[in-house]
Amino acid sequence: MSRTAPVLIAGGWRQACDAIGSFHAENPATGEAIDGDFPVSGPTDIEAALAAASVVAAELAATAPERIAAFLDAYADGIDAANAELAVLAHAETGLPRDTRLAKVELPRTSGQLRQAAVTVRNRSWTQPVVDTAAGLRTHLAPLHKPVLVFGPNNFPYAFNAIAGSDFASAIAARNPVIAKAHPAHPHTSRRLAEIAHAALLASGLPAAAVQMLYHFDSTLGLRLCGDSRLGAIGFTGSRAAGLAIKDAADRAGIPVYVELSSVNPVFLLPGALAERGAALAEEFFTSCTMGSGQFCTNPGVVIVPSGVDGEAFVEAARERFAAAPAGVLFSRGVLDHLVRSVDALRAAGAHCLAGGQRGDGPGHRYQPTLLSVDAAAFLANPIALQTEAFGPVSLLVRAEGVDSMAALAAAFEGNLTGTIYRAGDGRDDDAWQRVAAALRPRVGRLIGNRMPTGVAVSAAMNHGGPYPSTGHPGFTAVGMPAAIRRFAALHCYDHVPDPLLPPELRDRNPGGLPRLVDGRWSEADLGSA
Amino acid sequence: MSRTAPVLIAGGWRQACDAIGSFHAENPATGEAIDGDFPVSGPTDIEAALAAASVVAAELAATAPERIAAFLDAYADGIDAANAELAVLAHAETGLPRDTRLAKVELPRTSGQLRQAAVTVRNRSWTQPVVDTAAGLRTHLAPLHKPVLVFGPNNFPYAFNAIAGSDFASAIAARNPVIAKAHPAHPHTSRRLAEIAHAALLASGLPAAAVQMLYHFDSTLGLRLCGDSRLGAIGFTGSRAAGLAIKDAADRAGIPVYVELSSVNPVFLLPGALAERGAALAEEFFTSCTMGSGQFCTNPGVVIVPSGVDGEAFVEAARERFAAAPAGVLFSRGVLDHLVRSVDALRAAGAHCLAGGQRGDGPGHRYQPTLLSVDAAAFLANPIALQTEAFGPVSLLVRAEGVDSMAALAAAFEGNLTGTIYRAGDGRDDDAWQRVAAALRPRVGRLIGNRMPTGVAVSAAMNHGGPYPSTGHPGFTAVGMPAAIRRFAALHCYDHVPDPLLPPELRDRNPGGLPRLVDGRWSEADLGSA
Repeated sequence: MSRTAPVLIAGGWRQACDAIGSFHAENPATGEAIDGDFPVSGPTDIEAALAAASVVAAELAATAPERIAAFLDAYADGIDAANAELAVLAHAETGLPRDTRLAKVELPRTSGQLRQAAVTVRNRSWTQPVVDTAAGLRTHLAPLHKPVLVFGPNNFPYAFNAIAGSDFASAIAARNPVIAKAHPAHPHTSRRLAEIAHAALLASGLPAAAVQMLYHFDSTLGLRLCGDSRLGAIGFTGSRAAGLAIKDAADRAGIPVYVELSSVNPVFLLPGALAERGAALAEEFFTSCTMGSGQFCTNPGVVIVPSGVDGEAFVEAARERFAAAPAGVLFSRGVLDHLVRSVDALRAAGAHCLAGGQRGDGPGHRYQPTLLSVDAAAFLANPIALQTEAFGPVSLLVRAEGVDSMAALAAAFEGNLTGTIYRAGDGRDDDAWQRVAAALRPRVGRLIGNRMPTGVAVSAAMNHGGPYPSTGHPGFTAVGMPAAIRRFAALHCYDHVPDPLLPPELRDRNPGGLPRLVDGRWSEADLGSA
Repeated sequence: MSRTAPVLIAGGWRQACDAIGSFHAENPATGEAIDGDFPVSGPTDIEAALAAASVVAAELAATAPERIAAFLDAYADGIDAANAELAVLAHAETGLPRDTRLAKVELPRTSGQLRQAAVTVRNRSWTQPVVDTAAGLRTHLAPLHKPVLVFGPNNFPYAFNAIAGSDFASAIAARNPVIAKAHPAHPHTSRRLAEIAHAALLASGLPAAAVQMLYHFDSTLGLRLCGDSRLGAIGFTGSRAAGLAIKDAADRAGIPVYVELSSVNPVFLLPGALAERGAALAEEFFTSCTMGSGQFCTNPGVVIVPSGVDGEAFVEAARERFAAAPAGVLFSRGVLDHLVRSVDALRAAGAHCLAGGQRGDGPGHRYQPTLLSVDAAAFLANPIALQTEAFGPVSLLVRAEGVDSMAALAAAFEGNLTGTIYRAGDGRDDDAWQRVAAALRPRVGRLIGNRMPTGVAVSAAMNHGGPYPSTGHPGFTAVGMPAAIRRFAALHCYDHVPDPLLPPELRDRNPGGLPRLVDGRWSEADLGSA
């Protein structure tokens, strides 16, 4: 076997010692192999990574927040400095637009996210201290003192990369070592990111094994790792099948696991909105659904359109755009095959095709922008099959008869990351909004007004999460500090522990002015030295 | 079959319609049956409860917080008014001291806990609003819009009762319907509490099916219910075996599940503390371990004692107290049998008996206060078996050779609810504290200084939780508002939703002065009407 790229284990880059195979990246726009072989890691390397992370967990937990923040900032700076190089690598591996998406949007988002994590580390707000002076109790969120395993998805080579994305930033911000399992669709990008991370780690003086990366392992070894009680938590973004298997393994071992699985992100177009600006909505919908070839967790996969003249006009306008658009490049043959099966499943469940519906011409892995349609009665008769996620530039239009029908449809959705309602600007849809929102609200993590779901701002007020089966728990978000950090923390209470023996954010003195809930009120002050 | 006590289903008391058996309570101090048969519920009644709760979930979620709070206060008042009657019932069913424990401590704790929940409902602090004005995002914690199933344990007939305890109060406070599964050891107590709850519910105008109660069901039907996706969440306090089965069923269905399972609550006595006040510590330990016949989740089940003169004196003082004390009454034959098996397992693993170790004389279910001992090397050679929870008035002394040995022992513990370290008042133990605490801290939810773990204050700063396997997730507490409430909530984000269509706590106007995280700072003010 030829020499494969090194893995980042136990503080340094080294050859895989028991690889059970190798793989290479592919340019999905051409179908051609990209030079360079990467190892599929074997049990010895996986064990070495877990053991090394376990050894440094206590040291990392005891590290001053300033040093963690310095690492995050240095890593962000390194990513920005390598912008052009990283964009070339990821463009080749993903087919995503090099400048308009990768260099100018996703990379700045990624470095910005790391810097937001650094800010939150410095101000310690994620620790959320609570003090009861009368009871002698002080509680905060603290590191897990165990490694976090992060699985990155195929669709955001930087912003959700296991070695650079939100789960990574969150886990490190809470002072936990990270074992990153990169996505095998973009190993060159992941390797370069890991090199930058490793250099930043050494420069900031953190334990060198605090960040490790493997490119790939098979599902048997992967699930064994996910059930190893030395892990403190797991973050996963990807397919429902893989995510549920990981969740099951982790659950059985009592390991907190945060999985983002699948979502069809229903969009409801209320009659007034359609009447007011139907053509603009068709354009907006088409753009959102086909951007990045539709390979977004928050892609608008189902659109509910009221019947009538305005609805017909919207459908026709959308159909024209989908039919005229070129086929989109998908990340891999696996994504293409899965999409073909998903569209077949939707058709078998009663959807018919208005535009597209076929593999695209040309090299690599391509699929036509595809618009499917079904009426409300058919959807309600077979709601689970018709919520099959078609990961790609595909959306299902559901034709509703009035607001009652729209509300009934809203109530038929499984848990989703987002739900969108478009309403008229003059308030005429607001009663309809209330009825549809009442059914939709508990089924989605983010309820959106008058915009497509594909934008996920990195904000403290974001919720990139939702009820099962969009994620594994409705109370957590994968994006936005400080909430995303809190997923990777343990609640630590101190009961009558004297001040000098407390962690800094729970001591009487509060030099940083950290907001703390003290005897029921938020306070940034020192506590009386009672 | 004779007529059984009615169940509380779908808004009223009614006869079980498909009971698959019946049971009766027993006085554990006498072994005599207590009059009155209770049904073991069948599938029709379980389905009826789940269906009724599902129907009212949306109505309850939309209920004004003031009405929820009024219910909680009315329920607390009703409990206080029935204090004497409830104390008689629970004393007969549990053998716990009627006045000193039940009437004067646990019942006031229970009504106080309901009132704390009411305060938190009124001030809405559990919703934790976060606003990003620039991004147009507003997020808070909201009701699950689905019922919560609560399993109560045997050991707190009020404060953790499925129909009155912390899980109940938390789930209702978050505006979720509750299906209470009472513990079959105290059905009369649970029935009376449910009557008071039901009357308070009707008086406060909440949906009558918002609170339902079943006395018992078998594990097959119970686990089927725990895997029903119509449930929003599950709260459980009880044995590890039952809790893990429930967690597994819920996890597979993607239902958030909060289980409190088992804990041996290690107590470390540092040399200076022993030298300073060894005799007092022996008394404190004996009192804590035998109170309520040791049937506490936070019973001090393992005590680490340094070797030497002071350690020997402590052991001898403790041994004398344990040996001289009468056998304690346990809740049931099941508890007694389990305790006998647990002590057998500890002995088989190498512990030897210093005092007690036998069933007690007299009627009912009794066991001698029991002190076991093992040396550090033996403990470290077999740490899992020697952490077998012996639920009752039993503790294992581990004889350590110096601080290194104590730190090594601390590192050998599984996840626990609490860990305690006793140190000298003059600071001479503080280096030892740091070393023991470094190992113990990540393994416990609450780190306690110089007091026994059995006191669990109902406080915002409490953590009654801990790493697996003491609970199922290290980030949550089962006691203390508002954190306990947040377990039963979903994160709801609003993205560009206009002010009038937002829930009250996310609107621009903030008439109640609710603290909100607005653009990174806590604010009680209105938002600008931008």
